[in-house]
Amino acid sequence: MNQVVDFINVNRDRYVDELKQYLAIPSISALPQHAADVRRAAEWTGEALKTAGLQNVRLIETPGNPVVYGDWLNAPGKPTILFYGHYDVQPVDPVELWTSPPFEATVRDGEIYARGSADDKGQVFMHIKAVEAHLKQTGSLPLNIKFFIEGEEEVGSVHLDDFVRSHKQELAADVVVISDSPMFDRGIPSICYGLRGLVYCQIDLRGTKSDLHSGSFGGAVANPAMVLAQMLAQMKDRGGRIKVPGFYDAVRPLRDEERAEWKRLPFNETRYRKELGAPKLFGESGYTTLERTWARPTLEVNGLLAGFTGEGAKTVIPAVSMAKVSMRLVPDQDPDTIAKLFEDYVRKITPKTVEVKVTRMHGGKPWMTEFDNPFVKAAGRAIEKGFGKTPVFNREGGSIPVVATFQELLNLPSVLFGVGLPDENAHAPNEKLDLGNFHGGIVASAYLYDEIARTK
Amino acid sequence: MNQVVDFINVNRDRYVDELKQYLAIPSISALPQHAADVRRAAEWTGEALKTAGLQNVRLIETPGNPVVYGDWLNAPGKPTILFYGHYDVQPVDPVELWTSPPFEATVRDGEIYARGSADDKGQVFMHIKAVEAHLKQTGSLPLNIKFFIEGEEEVGSVHLDDFVRSHKQELAADVVVISDSPMFDRGIPSICYGLRGLVYCQIDLRGTKSDLHSGSFGGAVANPAMVLAQMLAQMKDRGGRIKVPGFYDAVRPLRDEERAEWKRLPFNETRYRKELGAPKLFGESGYTTLERTWARPTLEVNGLLAGFTGEGAKTVIPAVSMAKVSMRLVPDQDPDTIAKLFEDYVRKITPKTVEVKVTRMHGGKPWMTEFDNPFVKAAGRAIEKGFGKTPVFNREGGSIPVVATFQELLNLPSVLFGVGLPDENAHAPNEKLDLGNFHGGIVASAYLYDEIARTK
Repeated sequence: MNQVVDFINVNRDRYVDELKQYLAIPSISALPQHAADVRRAAEWTGEALKTAGLQNVRLIETPGNPVVYGDWLNAPGKPTILFYGHYDVQPVDPVELWTSPPFEATVRDGEIYARGSADDKGQVFMHIKAVEAHLKQTGSLPLNIKFFIEGEEEVGSVHLDDFVRSHKQELAADVVVISDSPMFDRGIPSICYGLRGLVYCQIDLRGTKSDLHSGSFGGAVANPAMVLAQMLAQMKDRGGRIKVPGFYDAVRPLRDEERAEWKRLPFNETRYRKELGAPKLFGESGYTTLERTWARPTLEVNGLLAGFTGEGAKTVIPAVSMAKVSMRLVPDQDPDTIAKLFEDYVRKITPKTVEVKVTRMHGGKPWMTEFDNPFVKAAGRAIEKGFGKTPVFNREGGSIPVVATFQELLNLPSVLFGVGLPDENAHAPNEKLDLGNFHGGIVASAYLYDEIARTK
Repeated sequence: MNQVVDFINVNRDRYVDELKQYLAIPSISALPQHAADVRRAAEWTGEALKTAGLQNVRLIETPGNPVVYGDWLNAPGKPTILFYGHYDVQPVDPVELWTSPPFEATVRDGEIYARGSADDKGQVFMHIKAVEAHLKQTGSLPLNIKFFIEGEEEVGSVHLDDFVRSHKQELAADVVVISDSPMFDRGIPSICYGLRGLVYCQIDLRGTKSDLHSGSFGGAVANPAMVLAQMLAQMKDRGGRIKVPGFYDAVRPLRDEERAEWKRLPFNETRYRKELGAPKLFGESGYTTLERTWARPTLEVNGLLAGFTGEGAKTVIPAVSMAKVSMRLVPDQDPDTIAKLFEDYVRKITPKTVEVKVTRMHGGKPWMTEFDNPFVKAAGRAIEKGFGKTPVFNREGGSIPVVATFQELLNLPSVLFGVGLPDENAHAPNEKLDLGNFHGGIVASAYLYDEIARTK
């Protein structure tokens, strides 16, 4: 392993230069006008896999964006890793809040700022470079590996389940490795053993056939913007508890051991609050902030739109209003069940004065694994070697629906091996990746292959 | 008067052609990028006044958009009308809902569709043409008239009070005539004797310094979109009554006579509801629809914005949220007092988890006059001659703040002589003006000068 690590250390700057090229491609999967960029990112990913020495590299078409595949299967008798990541990125609006352009990667204070730096191009690239280091220095890998990089993660991986179902043979492996989550904190590498699931819906209300003059008609009709506000206000009580009937029925209570373990984590609530710039933290009564984000479900309004929103004043009663509402789920909540409960509740609280439409956008199941899984242990050792510190074991508030898919369809455990940071601004302006962690992540990935090889 | 009316009848088509040119100018005062168009509309208005034979025509500069002035003061001993109107128009968004382009006036089924057709260019032009008919056919007018056409009505007439205050001499008159309101219904010409006032505010909330990933942070912080919804929901009770403390204190109760008079008006609630396309009407308990829109104050959400509002799904907790909220006021509510009560209430119901900013945009006082005012009676006779029907006396839900200004600063009564229709879509897509009413309005305006001349 020494020569592999040496190689990685020597090439540190080159990796950053190459990553910048990757980050320059605005592969925003949510916006149709970026379709060509998304494909360009897929092609770039394929070329990077070839350069690293992977074999059978190809783009596999789906009804949406292509999957990039590449493998190295020349270690008979050794385990096979299925590495999963994504080359698509989130939209960048409000773009005016970015300090440097989102698709011109800029290094400031040891961090690289660009959309996709942490989520997920930077972490995908880290594994590509770890493979390259092994193959360039030793001509081989200690195990077998399959790269499976998709382009629709940021739009709910809509074609992924079908793809996995119809490529079971090609994707067969012993363990899935995913690097798409942050570590617990700066300097505290971690292994994530639980993720929340997701249900994302859009509520559309219509009050009248067109916008009305609020002078002439104000008082005579229900205002869909006000009705929407009244409906949203009925979704949570003052203690932050979600009022959708049945919502909490399947929630697995937090175990005392977990609660105790998390209390020991170096989590500074004041620092956390200040970093977010929030006047005061707020969440469900009876739980700590870590418990609220890792082990409790929640409901968030992700977007609101009605009437006139430009500068100045326009005296309209909007004809329509819209809210995007998503719920984060925890084991053992089922997205389909929750979506149904939510829709039923929305219909129940919609007054007869407006028409309602609820559109389900996407969702994913929550996921949890056990601490004593041998692959999780192997990942812990690799992290320790790459970062020089024992990792902590945590859950994450975000959703990686594919983890549940791999569990269900391929019966594979997942190891979440993330090197982002909690303040990385994934999905927000000024997304960034710490270059120290990027480098440490390449070394740790190289060790990971070695450690997983030893499990068999 | 016969030759004047004959002239108007003969020129019917020419008036429509000229009006189309006026409506082609996108004089949207709310949008800075239309500043040049606003000035062009002012110049066009001045040229039209000159063509009609008015004297001393000029643009008078203000700190905002110019006032267009013109007069004819050659009837000594006769009353002087101050005609007030505006050449600016509302924004046109959502522009995709217009059947024909908002600034290419299009006639369909006897109605001319364009932004500004009813509000207010069409009604301003009607008076210009009535003056022209008198002067072209008889060389004189039966009274004195001053035209005072402003360009900031749709942005709250922000410089008007100062202008009136500093031009009291030039604006001195016996009565103000305004044509900027709809008639009661198609075929039911009316004189409006009351208007609601307005307070328009914007509420801005900030929760965190930037948008957050709703997975990683969902549950830990207050969501400003949800907080805004909860605050708006606290502004009205289930019966539609406004919960701002003190809001109703100065409301003049509806008189029994008015209530009885309005019950006799041919108002078809089912037709009204169907025309608006509302599943169900809704308003303050204990009042009819006419009472709710004419004699009761109300509170409306005019705009809502937070987070991701594009197509698809973006899992953010918005850093900020915004609502535009306006209140329509009735006698004797005072805009300053109400604005203060509203701001106090907003601050009171804002939780400590967010920062709040309340911006007052603009406002205007409510207004009412008496039935037996001689000028109102004269206007009733003119309407009867122009439309062949006795007008009804009604109030209006909208606001024309300048009416209160003229009352206060110039001590002048106003006659509201509107020929729009309730479904004219002022402030909404597909604004229109009935060409029969436009023509009848020119005839009635010509008679109005004659009838007002007889009051002295």
